Amino acid sequence: MAQKPSIPKGTRDFGSQEMSRRNYIFNTIREVYSLYGFQQIETPAMENLSTLMGKYGEEGDKLLFKILNSGDFLRGISDDDLRDGATGHLAAQLCEKGLRYDLTVPFARYVVQHREELVLPFRRYQIQPVWRADRPQKGRYREFYQCDADVVGSDSLLCEVELMQIIDTVFQRFGIRVCIKINNRKILSGIAEMIGEPDKIVDITVAIDKLDKIGLEAVNTELRESGISEEAIQKLQPIINLSGTNPEKIATMRQVLSGSEIGQKGIDEVEFVLSKLSTQNSQLELDLTLARGLNYYTGCIFEVKALDVEIGSITGGGRYDNLTGIFGLPGLSGVGISFGADRIYDVLNQLDLYPETVTTATQVLFINFGEKETDYSLPIIAGLRSQGLRCEIYPDASKMKKQMQYANQKGIPFVIMTGETEMNEGKVMLKNMLTGEQRLVLPEEIKALVAFDVCSTGV
Amino acid sequence: MAQKPSIPKGTRDFGSQEMSRRNYIFNTIREVYSLYGFQQIETPAMENLSTLMGKYGEEGDKLLFKILNSGDFLRGISDDDLRDGATGHLAAQLCEKGLRYDLTVPFARYVVQHREELVLPFRRYQIQPVWRADRPQKGRYREFYQCDADVVGSDSLLCEVELMQIIDTVFQRFGIRVCIKINNRKILSGIAEMIGEPDKIVDITVAIDKLDKIGLEAVNTELRESGISEEAIQKLQPIINLSGTNPEKIATMRQVLSGSEIGQKGIDEVEFVLSKLSTQNSQLELDLTLARGLNYYTGCIFEVKALDVEIGSITGGGRYDNLTGIFGLPGLSGVGISFGADRIYDVLNQLDLYPETVTTATQVLFINFGEKETDYSLPIIAGLRSQGLRCEIYPDASKMKKQMQYANQKGIPFVIMTGETEMNEGKVMLKNMLTGEQRLVLPEEIKALVAFDVCSTGV
Repeated sequence: MAQKPSIPKGTRDFGSQEMSRRNYIFNTIREVYSLYGFQQIETPAMENLSTLMGKYGEEGDKLLFKILNSGDFLRGISDDDLRDGATGHLAAQLCEKGLRYDLTVPFARYVVQHREELVLPFRRYQIQPVWRADRPQKGRYREFYQCDADVVGSDSLLCEVELMQIIDTVFQRFGIRVCIKINNRKILSGIAEMIGEPDKIVDITVAIDKLDKIGLEAVNTELRESGISEEAIQKLQPIINLSGTNPEKIATMRQVLSGSEIGQKGIDEVEFVLSKLSTQNSQLELDLTLARGLNYYTGCIFEVKALDVEIGSITGGGRYDNLTGIFGLPGLSGVGISFGADRIYDVLNQLDLYPETVTTATQVLFINFGEKETDYSLPIIAGLRSQGLRCEIYPDASKMKKQMQYANQKGIPFVIMTGETEMNEGKVMLKNMLTGEQRLVLPEEIKALVAFDVCSTGV
Repeated sequence: MAQKPSIPKGTRDFGSQEMSRRNYIFNTIREVYSLYGFQQIETPAMENLSTLMGKYGEEGDKLLFKILNSGDFLRGISDDDLRDGATGHLAAQLCEKGLRYDLTVPFARYVVQHREELVLPFRRYQIQPVWRADRPQKGRYREFYQCDADVVGSDSLLCEVELMQIIDTVFQRFGIRVCIKINNRKILSGIAEMIGEPDKIVDITVAIDKLDKIGLEAVNTELRESGISEEAIQKLQPIINLSGTNPEKIATMRQVLSGSEIGQKGIDEVEFVLSKLSTQNSQLELDLTLARGLNYYTGCIFEVKALDVEIGSITGGGRYDNLTGIFGLPGLSGVGISFGADRIYDVLNQLDLYPETVTTATQVLFINFGEKETDYSLPIIAGLRSQGLRCEIYPDASKMKKQMQYANQKGIPFVIMTGETEMNEGKVMLKNMLTGEQRLVLPEEIKALVAFDVCSTGV
């Protein structure tokens, strides 16, 4: 036999159980987005490389999957270009298109391209896969889904409030207990100002962002290596270690940042958002060490941690002031969130939180005894399907044992058998595969019996 | 302003109305597949090129989108290879992966790769995009969705019958009147035998397949050019022109093919399938000129035509006997169908057949008069959302006119205003945007009023 075929590393096949669970996740998120007036869009898997390049930093450019031009892809490329070995330059000549790396840049491109048709503020959501040529490792894939919602064209903090409510509602529906961590880039700017290092805001946030992962000592080392003065690092310590309730933290930071206009603005924003979220189910925590890596954030930033499972952030987002500026449409403020479907999947699995009804597997299998019995069964099956029951008939008149085995292996909860006796009486034999109980019933009784047994036995 | 960004030719953005309609199409197909016990799977967008190459003919290989290897993609490629200009050979060195071209080959790969976990017969469905580097033209895209269902591991004709029932149910749900055309590759083989050209079956089917598009004369010319004898072509004419009811056609063909064992087998199969489909809604037509291009078909083949719109086939499929053989697992028979979502979308649009309820747009907009009014509105909005109403609050306290314009442009059917008077009475002002009618109501009355007006006015 030939070598078993395989798929590219970092990619996955999803079988039917995984698909049911993934659909449950996507549908839940989709439904909540809709309740908040967000409208779905989709963009192509391939974007022009000119759209993608330079948007994710130098490292990101390397992680883009590039698509070889069709036809004679060498046409117009000089021998020098081919041989000088600068692969980045050559790649740009060989490839015009790339696979999308996230949903945010395609969204910005979409807003600019369709600006004449859009009604602002524009609330959109988008649930699609993205591709990254990252080194594959546990929990990190080269193809994975993002589930984004953004509002652009308004700088109202109500947008932040609603996105937090969405997060709260989604995780409540999933039954996952979470803590939503909130911070604001303006507070971080205020801190940089206050410690006398206003130009080092990026270095400071990148270092602080790692506190959870690498610990305080390593963060301080990194700050030192970024050229931040010892004095400034000392001033940072109480802020990094700040504890207490949200109002206590806010009160402290108001004092610490009393000299920074932008810092005060950030505190105002956080205070406003928290004040509107008093009835949330989720924990809400002002976390001054939350920085989020992406440099386009300018205001509120947030991240969600699961309380009962050790795993990285399962949702994140923030406000950006000029995402569409790179495509020639400046001055549009926006704010967005992104649910990490793959991690949510892991959390739901670990906590075993899927509702029983998630499966879409077959409910009733009709055993095939031959053509006469099949002719008797087909109209009954058609009737059950039109009542919404998921039915199969075994396609071949194989041995009974083989057909029962099929039902068992697929976890089909009910089997229907029709022999001479049943046909003569206009009935069928309904067998509950879990209890083994068999009942001779009329075709029109099947639906109710299956529904009842499904409820009472939990299959 | 910078140049307006764009997307690669042959690809599309989908806005919210298009998405609602596309989701309606996919959900309808998905639901019917489930009723028939088909289980959803998904495979990665990228497959190894070794999986894809050579499966779609020479032309197909050229239409595969290939993904440039990451990192130093020139490593190991000799100067000679680079310069000799054989792009096909070089492409294979530069690229290990490609985008899937259809769902059938990835499915065959899936079955072989996961054969130990699968319970046979395996009924799967798959709804995912595919990519082809075709020249883009009206109605032909470089990225489009396929919606496939297949059963592998059984050669029972009941599978064909059920797939026909699925087609019938899906188009009945869509309200599209269709004709399902059926033929059988074995009949075509019988014909090739009977006219004395058994080795020319591929040429004959390819030519006959074009009858609809190019007419009888051109088909005959093409047959001549394939080296088929004038005598054989003359013998073919009555078959190509065969008319009458299905039983009449079957009776004629039984006689014509009386000397061909495989031809008789094909007629038996068609007769069996048609006999089990007597209660279908759709027209069923035995069409001996139906050949379908793909060479892996070996038994029943089918294609669906819309009766009320001029458009190519909107669904097709057939039986294949050895699809997994190319991956080292011979002897598995299968049969499948594929709904053409993009063409179905066009048909539904042209006939204006979308149900009113397809939209998932916002139902109620709360006008924003300022912070006090917003604080009053937020708990009401939360309550409505928990009742399943899709609500928005305008994020900024902009001029009333601007907010009403937003509601109009987005087609939001209801607007709620809350000023001093309403708040004092614990009520809200509900305005029907279609009729202009305003009513002062209690928050708990909103849901029923919106639902009632939505029903009565059809918004």
